[in-house]
Amino acid sequence: MAKIAVLGHGVVGSGVVELCHKNHAGIVKKAGQEVEVKRILDLREFPDLPYADKFTKNYDDILNDDEISVVVEVMGGLNPAYEYVKAALNKKKSVVTSNKELVAAKGAELLAVAKENNVNFFFEASVGGGIPIIRPLHQCLAANEIKEIAGILNGTTNFILTKMIREQMSFEDALKLAQQLGYAERNPAADVEGADACRKICILASLAYGMHVYPENVYTEGITKITLEDVAYADSWGGVIKLIGRAKALDDGKLLVMVHPAFISSDSQLAGIDDVFNGIMVRGDATGDVVFYGKGAGKLPTASAVVADVIDVIKATKTNPTLTWVDTHENVVVDHMQTSVAFYIRCVAADGAFAEKLAEQCFGKVQMLSRPDMPREEIAFVTPELSEQKVYDSIQYLKENNVDVLSAIRVLDY
Amino acid sequence: MAKIAVLGHGVVGSGVVELCHKNHAGIVKKAGQEVEVKRILDLREFPDLPYADKFTKNYDDILNDDEISVVVEVMGGLNPAYEYVKAALNKKKSVVTSNKELVAAKGAELLAVAKENNVNFFFEASVGGGIPIIRPLHQCLAANEIKEIAGILNGTTNFILTKMIREQMSFEDALKLAQQLGYAERNPAADVEGADACRKICILASLAYGMHVYPENVYTEGITKITLEDVAYADSWGGVIKLIGRAKALDDGKLLVMVHPAFISSDSQLAGIDDVFNGIMVRGDATGDVVFYGKGAGKLPTASAVVADVIDVIKATKTNPTLTWVDTHENVVVDHMQTSVAFYIRCVAADGAFAEKLAEQCFGKVQMLSRPDMPREEIAFVTPELSEQKVYDSIQYLKENNVDVLSAIRVLDY
Repeated sequence: MAKIAVLGHGVVGSGVVELCHKNHAGIVKKAGQEVEVKRILDLREFPDLPYADKFTKNYDDILNDDEISVVVEVMGGLNPAYEYVKAALNKKKSVVTSNKELVAAKGAELLAVAKENNVNFFFEASVGGGIPIIRPLHQCLAANEIKEIAGILNGTTNFILTKMIREQMSFEDALKLAQQLGYAERNPAADVEGADACRKICILASLAYGMHVYPENVYTEGITKITLEDVAYADSWGGVIKLIGRAKALDDGKLLVMVHPAFISSDSQLAGIDDVFNGIMVRGDATGDVVFYGKGAGKLPTASAVVADVIDVIKATKTNPTLTWVDTHENVVVDHMQTSVAFYIRCVAADGAFAEKLAEQCFGKVQMLSRPDMPREEIAFVTPELSEQKVYDSIQYLKENNVDVLSAIRVLDY
Repeated sequence: MAKIAVLGHGVVGSGVVELCHKNHAGIVKKAGQEVEVKRILDLREFPDLPYADKFTKNYDDILNDDEISVVVEVMGGLNPAYEYVKAALNKKKSVVTSNKELVAAKGAELLAVAKENNVNFFFEASVGGGIPIIRPLHQCLAANEIKEIAGILNGTTNFILTKMIREQMSFEDALKLAQQLGYAERNPAADVEGADACRKICILASLAYGMHVYPENVYTEGITKITLEDVAYADSWGGVIKLIGRAKALDDGKLLVMVHPAFISSDSQLAGIDDVFNGIMVRGDATGDVVFYGKGAGKLPTASAVVADVIDVIKATKTNPTLTWVDTHENVVVDHMQTSVAFYIRCVAADGAFAEKLAEQCFGKVQMLSRPDMPREEIAFVTPELSEQKVYDSIQYLKENNVDVLSAIRVLDY
């Protein structure tokens, strides 16, 4: 008999309890023993629930209950989740979490604490919701050197971009719709500014490359500046704009980790991942490109990933040796200005021909783009692959020459 | 130190040895101990290989070597692979295989023998090559009831169909090209007649539903009858033709398991899986649709799945409790004639209007299709969802009324 406690009875927490009840027989069969939710921590009261007696507002009731061997942390936020999780691990309780903020900020430390206590700290649900990605990455793809990871990791921004692409909705209108549908928070900054995607790519990069990647070291650009004009140019180029989180091992041992909108060719498997779906491409040296696709959020998808982790934790006899990384206590992420990529650039100038000449002078051979109803003074093009520093400098130079750069979006070739 | 033996030094076998050498450091780190390929069984000689001294032609050299704890079976075919694997398990050696024929025919028995001996029988590489699917199915998606599985499981047929769809190549020409490129065997029957896809969906269905599904009980239709006319009608309908293996739990406890070409809407994530790629959709009750996509075959992708299994087997202390199913000794697959699906039907008749009237009479409200340069005497349409028996009877009826039915392809709505 395994007894578990759930910290937080919000969307995911209530989903975990629901799933444990609904698929009880299958879960017990897979875990090899009875599984019971014994306590639920929440400051709110839920007197009408059939399991109202399980609730407590005092974490000590869980921490000091030796019968409880697994703690599910689905409160979100860094504090007190961090303190609660660490205390549970130190009490030799395994922890399962869906909290990407916690894993991205404290993963290396909590994995080490879990190991000291010979228990587990699992977080499949922290990336990609119900899509299995954490376990395939460290277990199924274990024979590979991971060359690169690139993913659409945030459903809210993907929904907004899909509306802009398919229905020519403006960013503002699409955001409003996302809020109405409950896909976006009232304060949507964490989604639309890229912080959520950043946490997720940090977790994937840390796991793939064995070194903790901190969000604050990762260049992160959201989608708030994307316009319908950019969408039209992407279309004429043969692609779409997606918010991509990517991580890549460089030859010098450093990592390229970035989050930004990007032009993606329509042929790419990532291009077809629309609406609130997430998709993650893992490029292994042996396996080639493997793509994982599904619902990246939502009550039951996320809860199902949590419960799968709970089943695994119950079956485990010791700390999983492959789900781990270390804190190198230095910044392992390369300065993005030193990396190279192609850019799409859109600008306006009184003299279009002059701007085009300047562009060629700055960037070399560019690929000119057009769109329906393109104003005479607008030009748009895709540069060759150049260092980001060079592109940045060139944009400054254009501005100094009265060419107004309206958009600059990276072009990726997945 | 874990010592392994590899049975068969063909494409996959040599890939396994290559990968163990190439990614040795990473593999050792993940396995938590030194890993060495000690012996290789092959009737051929490879005197020029640096590891020529590892070869043997006598399986007893492996079976009776107590140092060897893991046997990798990558010979293919049912015999002697079956005897070899069973003998190894009975000697308490774990077995990793890429052999779908073996798993589809003998999976339940070999899993039971592994359990009796407290060792493991793993076969991630038997489905989807380098795509992680076996492990995610029984482990990551453990909290789900699997509603349905549908996949493009054979790269050769997917390559042929892609050439027909994108380049209007005939089936015969596309097959010839596939043979030239090494994607298809000289005798391509196992691929183009669907037997390979059938074995794979049997393995997935067995694992998802816990009961051995035998290939001989599964209705299997290949792609040899698909014409460019069918491709054109699929296009006009808004989709493509793919060879789909599917499995679904029915309310009466039986399973629907079938392999056949199908119209798939262009909006479907399966529609975009082209060339030699494979893609597998798993529909869970909690997680929704999750799609796994990647190279379904090839030396290194398949070898990487084998080596990942080897790493897991080395780390395991007992038989994996979730990678299992039983032989119910009865046919668990429903007669496909009793199941319902929509059909695309193409026919010719001297009197087109009469044929259309007959079609409506037989099938109810049909959706008429057209294509460029459509001959006057041809009609094509999509029926509503009907029992396969009803469709079969109606096609007989059309034929009796001098309407020649040229094509009948199922229409799926993934």
